[in-house]
Amino acid sequence: MAGKYDFLLVSNRPRCESFIEDVMGKEPVFICVVATTETAKIPGLSAAGKYPELTDYTPPADVELIFYGGCRCIQGVPVTPEGIPTPALITMSALKLAEIPCFVVSGGLRVKPHLPIVEVGGKHGFDIRTGKAVEGVEEIVDRARVAGESFSKVADYLVIGESIPGGTTTALGVMLAMGVDARGKVSSSMPSNPHQLKLKVVEEGMSSAGIGFGDFREDGLRAVACVGDPMIPAFAGLVLGAAGRVPVMLAGGTQMGAVLSFVKAMDPRMLRNLVVGTTRWIVEDSTSDLKGIVRQIGRVGVLAADLDFSGSKHAGLRAYEDAVVKEGVGAGGVCIAAMLKSRGLITKESLLREVEKNYRRLVA
Amino acid sequence: MAGKYDFLLVSNRPRCESFIEDVMGKEPVFICVVATTETAKIPGLSAAGKYPELTDYTPPADVELIFYGGCRCIQGVPVTPEGIPTPALITMSALKLAEIPCFVVSGGLRVKPHLPIVEVGGKHGFDIRTGKAVEGVEEIVDRARVAGESFSKVADYLVIGESIPGGTTTALGVMLAMGVDARGKVSSSMPSNPHQLKLKVVEEGMSSAGIGFGDFREDGLRAVACVGDPMIPAFAGLVLGAAGRVPVMLAGGTQMGAVLSFVKAMDPRMLRNLVVGTTRWIVEDSTSDLKGIVRQIGRVGVLAADLDFSGSKHAGLRAYEDAVVKEGVGAGGVCIAAMLKSRGLITKESLLREVEKNYRRLVA
Repeated sequence: MAGKYDFLLVSNRPRCESFIEDVMGKEPVFICVVATTETAKIPGLSAAGKYPELTDYTPPADVELIFYGGCRCIQGVPVTPEGIPTPALITMSALKLAEIPCFVVSGGLRVKPHLPIVEVGGKHGFDIRTGKAVEGVEEIVDRARVAGESFSKVADYLVIGESIPGGTTTALGVMLAMGVDARGKVSSSMPSNPHQLKLKVVEEGMSSAGIGFGDFREDGLRAVACVGDPMIPAFAGLVLGAAGRVPVMLAGGTQMGAVLSFVKAMDPRMLRNLVVGTTRWIVEDSTSDLKGIVRQIGRVGVLAADLDFSGSKHAGLRAYEDAVVKEGVGAGGVCIAAMLKSRGLITKESLLREVEKNYRRLVA
Repeated sequence: MAGKYDFLLVSNRPRCESFIEDVMGKEPVFICVVATTETAKIPGLSAAGKYPELTDYTPPADVELIFYGGCRCIQGVPVTPEGIPTPALITMSALKLAEIPCFVVSGGLRVKPHLPIVEVGGKHGFDIRTGKAVEGVEEIVDRARVAGESFSKVADYLVIGESIPGGTTTALGVMLAMGVDARGKVSSSMPSNPHQLKLKVVEEGMSSAGIGFGDFREDGLRAVACVGDPMIPAFAGLVLGAAGRVPVMLAGGTQMGAVLSFVKAMDPRMLRNLVVGTTRWIVEDSTSDLKGIVRQIGRVGVLAADLDFSGSKHAGLRAYEDAVVKEGVGAGGVCIAAMLKSRGLITKESLLREVEKNYRRLVA
């Protein structure tokens, strides 16, 4: 069935197939959860911004790009230090081709986008080395859950993505605190994945909080409060509010392991109605292991958009094939949703053409 | 056609009929626009709160009531000084019976509800006697317009209501600045409508701003900035973003005159896709004149829910028949939408039964 679609069934094939059957041709809503954490400003950790100080601007710029086809809070679009453009470019292109409606939920930001945003009561996250990473986690989850319920009533299914620089490090923190061994398994937007630095930062945070591996296996709230980020409880709250009513695709890479762990601890029944939707670049990445993370949490289907930018005329897009940026802002999941909504009329070729068009307009 | 429905076609019947035909049996989304203005704290102006100082809590409490079936930021529910409960009780009952999804948009609040809220960049309004009532009006409109576009993609039509204590005075200000003679025509939640005081407050604001009647006929932005409130641009922005795509019901009383004037000045074509939905208590109110306001603006249909609380066992509900509270929080429009969605299965009787049940639980 998926043969004619440009996505791959990566893990837990029956769960993937049942999801696809449920949502084929249906109307999704995309929700982008944005947040920032001071953790992203630790030198060498994140490439989601040209300089560490610019990471505060990356999530608002990403969602402005999605809504307006261009950023307002910065000039140009977010790029890595190597000049590779944000995956929001892919998300924007797929949303546009498939006419998928979009909303922004803020877990907590320093810089607000020039957009309507759903606030769930959080503020930006702190450096996890303090062991006090996020304030008011429970309130964020509660309010995001209400938002998830509301969104589940206006869509056939939800696709939820994220934009938070430094997010794989905080996700690693939450997973380790919750007993998921994600050491060496989270991905990176840098050319060489700084696993040692990420682990050192997380270990410093866990030490400051006085906790060890798996101490918060059942308590995502405290795991996030100590070594997480505000995106995770906002994202998980949306999932918890929605997945009892409609299927939900978690559109992201290895950070989804932290969201899944959190959701599982709060309500394990919800896992049945979830899949992870990501990119081929993530599942083929030799420096990370999404499948190995998901396997530790539960039988959750993993789908990957079979994007192929190798034939692009633009070096900035071909760079995606070098497994540098790979994923973010829900790019992979939104591409899959675009293919499903269009019943396969939207393909990796038409997606690349649209991405290239937007790339030329915005970057080249 | 409307004979079997418990609502009245009050003005511009063909527009009402075409709206009803468009939306019958369809799926609405209700959006409640909340804001506060310091104007509400002028003694004798607003009854939307037991004391003037409590008006900051009324909009958040209203939307908490809608979402949770009870308030969180205050004990009990908002009441007038006479103890008459907020019309949010009616809204909540109708939303529940008809299973209508709901979102909250904040134009600008002092007190945040324990809920996810869509922020559009505004802060609470100032006392209009200063002539500097609202900051950043254009930004509020722009962001609310984007939100309206998004909501229009996930609903067959929108029903938009408001909660802002003191809102009829600020609406009067905007209407006078825009050349709509609403003197003696706006309604009130007080037993005797303090028209003289409202006009005095507005005239003081217009004098501070150095403007006269009709000076801002084409410029709602400046009218709101001088003598309006933050609800109006947020509400109008939602309408402007949505009404090009789906029908929109403005669920409210005489304040809708300010929203309509603002929308008309920005894009008069939008008026064709709007109706006002209110209560019989508003259209029968001898101290105000909604029809006389709408007539000055354009051929916009006005519908009224034919609610009848005269037979209620509860004095607090029978008081609605004395034309005290009359309308608010989208009560009338949401009742009409509930009747339309259910194709007449929801009636004024079933609505009263549900309202009484909730009244007993929350107030009695």
